[in-house]
Amino acid sequence: MTAMAGLEPQHFLWEARDGVATVRLNRPDRKNPLTFESYAELRDTFRALVYADDIDVVVFLPNGGNFSSGGDVHDIIGPLTRMDMKGLLAFTRMTGDFVKAMIHCGKPIISAVDGVAVGAGAIITMASDIRLATPQAKTAFLFTRVGLAGCDMGACAILPRIIGQGRAAELLYTGRSMTADEGERWGYYNRLVPADEIEAEAMTLARSIASGPTFAHGITKTQLNQEWSMSLDQAIEAEAQAQAICMQTGDFRRAYEAFVAKQKPVFAGD
Amino acid sequence: MTAMAGLEPQHFLWEARDGVATVRLNRPDRKNPLTFESYAELRDTFRALVYADDIDVVVFLPNGGNFSSGGDVHDIIGPLTRMDMKGLLAFTRMTGDFVKAMIHCGKPIISAVDGVAVGAGAIITMASDIRLATPQAKTAFLFTRVGLAGCDMGACAILPRIIGQGRAAELLYTGRSMTADEGERWGYYNRLVPADEIEAEAMTLARSIASGPTFAHGITKTQLNQEWSMSLDQAIEAEAQAQAICMQTGDFRRAYEAFVAKQKPVFAGD
Amino acid sequence: MTAMAGLEPQHFLWEARDGVATVRLNRPDRKNPLTFESYAELRDTFRALVYADDIDVVVFLPNGGNFSSGGDVHDIIGPLTRMDMKGLLAFTRMTGDFVKAMIHCGKPIISAVDGVAVGAGAIITMASDIRLATPQAKTAFLFTRVGLAGCDMGACAILPRIIGQGRAAELLYTGRSMTADEGERWGYYNRLVPADEIEAEAMTLARSIASGPTFAHGITKTQLNQEWSMSLDQAIEAEAQAQAICMQTGDFRRAYEAFVAKQKPVFAGD
Repeated sequence: MTAMAGLEPQHFLWEARDGVATVRLNRPDRKNPLTFESYAELRDTFRALVYADDIDVVVFLPNGGNFSSGGDVHDIIGPLTRMDMKGLLAFTRMTGDFVKAMIHCGKPIISAVDGVAVGAGAIITMASDIRLATPQAKTAFLFTRVGLAGCDMGACAILPRIIGQGRAAELLYTGRSMTADEGERWGYYNRLVPADEIEAEAMTLARSIASGPTFAHGITKTQLNQEWSMSLDQAIEAEAQAQAICMQTGDFRRAYEAFVAKQKPVFAGD
Repeated sequence: MTAMAGLEPQHFLWEARDGVATVRLNRPDRKNPLTFESYAELRDTFRALVYADDIDVVVFLPNGGNFSSGGDVHDIIGPLTRMDMKGLLAFTRMTGDFVKAMIHCGKPIISAVDGVAVGAGAIITMASDIRLATPQAKTAFLFTRVGLAGCDMGACAILPRIIGQGRAAELLYTGRSMTADEGERWGYYNRLVPADEIEAEAMTLARSIASGPTFAHGITKTQLNQEWSMSLDQAIEAEAQAQAICMQTGDFRRAYEAFVAKQKPVFAGD
Repeated sequence: MTAMAGLEPQHFLWEARDGVATVRLNRPDRKNPLTFESYAELRDTFRALVYADDIDVVVFLPNGGNFSSGGDVHDIIGPLTRMDMKGLLAFTRMTGDFVKAMIHCGKPIISAVDGVAVGAGAIITMASDIRLATPQAKTAFLFTRVGLAGCDMGACAILPRIIGQGRAAELLYTGRSMTADEGERWGYYNRLVPADEIEAEAMTLARSIASGPTFAHGITKTQLNQEWSMSLDQAIEAEAQAQAICMQTGDFRRAYEAFVAKQKPVFAGD
């Protein structure tokens, strides 16, 4: 296992304390676009998180009132229009690998959305486990606006499972913004929080989850992914095995002993 | 085929009349926890229901103002903390087999939720086909509170398909209660009913479904399960075959003849 | 590629202009039921649409205040009650093939629902990509009322993905009408529109989508179908490939050039 709290990434902001790491994309004057470099560094960071034992929860935070404007038009879209198929597929696979790395990192991910969260910015929130938003949040899967299909980084698979097939289809065919109220009604956002409270609220939630049985949380995350396309019978057997593993952890015993002693359990993540 | 209306289970309450069977867990002073014995007897009962031709719909009812507090801390969790892997897997598979038996029993299942429905109690409602609740219903998938993962008895597969992936993730990572209002807004509960009316309402609904084409209902239940992980083309072909079977039933002919005679059809379940 | 704007179907109404085709079922005095002939002609029409390059979006419109009463009792249900299994399966496969043809036609489909949309009429709206409705819309998957199962033309697979497993189960077991308000709350309808505006609104939406990158829309539609039962990792790789294809289109370049020139892109569908 490795430690990642001290990570010093070059293309995004990273802070970590008490098991909770925060990520901010970082060009607030341009609403925090992604670049080839930040995609790659994010992918590598989330791949490394699998083996980090000092980070239990990751929180994506806004920066300067916006979440992210997605792939930069000048730095990314321009070059893509001049690339051959080999280069294009290398790019779309890199962005897909970032989402896969988020899904496979073994830690719950929370997104706190304010202002603009569009294109790949919207995808980051979609690939998170839990989403908070301010009333000003504007999330758009706007790939169609730049001449592309809605199937970007898993959107045709994941978005329908969050908000339903009909609402997802409309957002993907039109590229329109989902308002914060719509997002809350549709189950995209878990709740809305005023802009001046959203970071504190996201951190409180993150710390609360990080104080739980983090080994078991990793199993929860694995199963939410693994069972995606299993039959019901397969999923139930998979859970029987996965939960039996968790029943051999110290955290399960700690919770029982705390209950018997009428105390609040203190989990250790093993 | 067998008859089950006269069943006399030892570890839960069972009543049956006119094709509708009701189940109540039965230690209301302790909010109706499950035990090793009641799990096993419920599993066996739902397995036997496949072959029962005198029961068409099953209704889980609350008892003493609560639905179920789930696996008992003293009777179940304590022993589990001292069990080896073989014993643990035997337990998680038994609980999973209960859910599988509910899914495969061939009869629609309705849960009427009042008060506490947590842990395995919440799972019983989740694995039902239709859920009513009182405004006092508190449903929590609280496995994380006892140091375990959210993947218990199918929850990581089934809960997201009922309320969406994002809402399910929050409930499973935090273990928090879902209020009755949330449950209704999110599609978990089909509707809310005052506590003094919920049993009557659930029974009226059950009798109404039991008066329908029960052979066809069994096919509906089978297909809702079977098609869970099929491709769309596979599901559509499967339905073509399944519905063709139903078109050879007497109930289909009875419905047509009643329509022509401007009468209400009387279904016979064959 | 073929042209279909000039199609003259015998069993439904068809109009086409500027890339948008409209379909109306056509016996308004009987609420527009389907017949053996209209099923077959609709199936063939949607199969042909795959190869049509003059139609980009299809809109189903109501006729005389109703959408469709589904399979006609006298013309369809009567004959079915007298058919052998070979004939029944040929019928259910034909209706399933119509839904498959809608799913595989490569063009976004919008349904504008007013009045009655029941049985196979409800299925047409369910198999559409986007649904608008008037406050008077009454959608019912009423197969159980005629003695059949809810698994008709894909309903047990598709309906749960639009409105959630619990709400779908209730509609399929009871056959009851979903009101317009329920449909909007549950994500079945994308929005409600007054009856005297719904056709104009549906056409405006259709034209807006048709003015987008239609080749990419076809890929979006393909992926929404293809990824239905894929694992998450498979879906993300499939999207990497599908989006790389779209990045080689003229529409992607046109959008970029328009952005640089601070203009609105004009898409050409290639």
